Amino acid sequence: MASIEDVARTAGVSTATVSRALRGLPNVTEATRVKVLTAVAELGYVPSPSASSLASGRTRTIGVLTPGIARWYFGEVVDGVEHALRGLGFDVLLYALGSPRDPLPRPPVDPNVLRRRVDGTLVVGLPLEAEEISSLAALGVPLAFVGSGPRGQVTHRVDDVAAGLAATRHLTALGHRAVGHVAGAQDPVSEWSPAMGRRAGWRRALVEVGVDAPSSWEVDGNFDLEGGRAAGHALLAAHPELTAVFASSDEMAMGVILAARAAGRRVPEDLSVIGVDGHPHGELVGLTTVAQDAFQQGQDAALVLLQMVLGERAPEAVTYPTRLVRRSSTAGPRTVAES
Amino acid sequence: MASIEDVARTAGVSTATVSRALRGLPNVTEATRVKVLTAVAELGYVPSPSASSLASGRTRTIGVLTPGIARWYFGEVVDGVEHALRGLGFDVLLYALGSPRDPLPRPPVDPNVLRRRVDGTLVVGLPLEAEEISSLAALGVPLAFVGSGPRGQVTHRVDDVAAGLAATRHLTALGHRAVGHVAGAQDPVSEWSPAMGRRAGWRRALVEVGVDAPSSWEVDGNFDLEGGRAAGHALLAAHPELTAVFASSDEMAMGVILAARAAGRRVPEDLSVIGVDGHPHGELVGLTTVAQDAFQQGQDAALVLLQMVLGERAPEAVTYPTRLVRRSSTAGPRTVAES
Repeated sequence: MASIEDVARTAGVSTATVSRALRGLPNVTEATRVKVLTAVAELGYVPSPSASSLASGRTRTIGVLTPGIARWYFGEVVDGVEHALRGLGFDVLLYALGSPRDPLPRPPVDPNVLRRRVDGTLVVGLPLEAEEISSLAALGVPLAFVGSGPRGQVTHRVDDVAAGLAATRHLTALGHRAVGHVAGAQDPVSEWSPAMGRRAGWRRALVEVGVDAPSSWEVDGNFDLEGGRAAGHALLAAHPELTAVFASSDEMAMGVILAARAAGRRVPEDLSVIGVDGHPHGELVGLTTVAQDAFQQGQDAALVLLQMVLGERAPEAVTYPTRLVRRSSTAGPRTVAES
Repeated sequence: MASIEDVARTAGVSTATVSRALRGLPNVTEATRVKVLTAVAELGYVPSPSASSLASGRTRTIGVLTPGIARWYFGEVVDGVEHALRGLGFDVLLYALGSPRDPLPRPPVDPNVLRRRVDGTLVVGLPLEAEEISSLAALGVPLAFVGSGPRGQVTHRVDDVAAGLAATRHLTALGHRAVGHVAGAQDPVSEWSPAMGRRAGWRRALVEVGVDAPSSWEVDGNFDLEGGRAAGHALLAAHPELTAVFASSDEMAMGVILAARAAGRRVPEDLSVIGVDGHPHGELVGLTTVAQDAFQQGQDAALVLLQMVLGERAPEAVTYPTRLVRRSSTAGPRTVAES
């Protein structure tokens, strides 16, 4: 069991500062508070409820809204959120709005399920309508977003346009011009969803090399392996001229690789494939990807939301870096196809 | 939005029967109630709270205890639980006790976090100490188990000994005798954990062919890919005589395959590998596996727990079938090694 002394040592501050930080008292800088909260989360320190204002008069519960947790990104983020909160004695009330197995569209968010039950709400990878955001904000508890989120709200995410650009530029730099796209599920809230951002990056990278991609080069893959497989089959059948595919998630990219195998197309000799995420199983098929740290996003967002619960100002719009992980699923086109 | 008429049509009963079933009134057989609850869950029907006793005077929340959700099995089960409960207007309060990233041992279960906050508790894949089970039972709300569970409790799981037997017998039938084992994380509660059951099946299948496996043929793989990779490296380095490995989960089996590749051992020519789960990514590496339906286990367990919340008797110990999925990661040993 970690002690307050362990937290102080790890954070590099005095125990009195740890105590002040956890009780939300003044004379603790933002940077110090983050250091303390991070150490608390890392060590799994559970402050005594009587010694800490974190717990007093609160539900000690954070609501997490997510579209199912079986996909990699959501599982990682929720795991990170849990990891950060557990150490501080907070619980997670999970609302999964629509599993990958449900038909679209998802049900609307009902803010009443959260009323008086949570101290704050995290929306994970779920593009919401403006009215839904207003109704969540009207609950009167802090609200933060992970993975997607509108301007003016506290968000933790990668730059999805940049991720789509980086993935597609990797392909165009290798010489590909006929690059298909397997997009995430379309959402009515287009302007800030990961699917739309990554798609915009794909389009832009192709325009940079003088290619105006026809809309039929793009198929929806529902952000999962089976959707990616179906999209891959459709793309390869309709457009044999494609020499590469950019999929908006690694799980969809894995499905594209399975579709290519089934169609007798070798990867990367006949088709290059790149994804987004850094899913640990990408290594199984040598998947090149634009990786992000989803666990970290969840952990950070939870700590920032707790700061907001404590009445602190939170940083808006934290953007996480991505990094290109080159493996064997991408290479130069064997023969540049006529377009 | 599904109507009560849709539910009646799908369940093949009258709307009056749907209404009776949902209000927990008598004159509805167990079988009919399950049909109705299943239709409700499938269609996402939300009964009006005023029309249904399901919601009245209750928290409308089910607590789910799990060791993290980022691993496949837990994500699938929790997704199934959510899917079943959402349709009935119930929420999930998630407690992840120890993420895969946390050092062992996990923290003890604190029943106070659930007190007066849930109508029932589902324990997912988390072997608990007898005192922990007693303290959860003392909350006075129904308790059910998924994935593991002691005798005398309501459980939904596969027969883990049978799963280990089936996987290892597949290997011995192919001619393997030197079969290593990558076990799940050891848990202090050994008698009914999946790791221990599958390990017992492995030992028994080897004894059937006259092999008394030395304890050094078994390495702990922590139920994840990186643990499986490390265990695979250790096994292959210490025991080059092994011609096959049975891993207690597909994620660990994937890690063993990566370790074999790194060691220059071809799968299946130089090493056969089999897992348990039916993870969709197993197809990426042609993984032979003993598959289970984790989503279904979660969905069923949630509906049974709701029946218990309604005061109905629940079936004890539902055992799910597994099925051998043969792919390309298993074959006969190229040369039977001297032992």
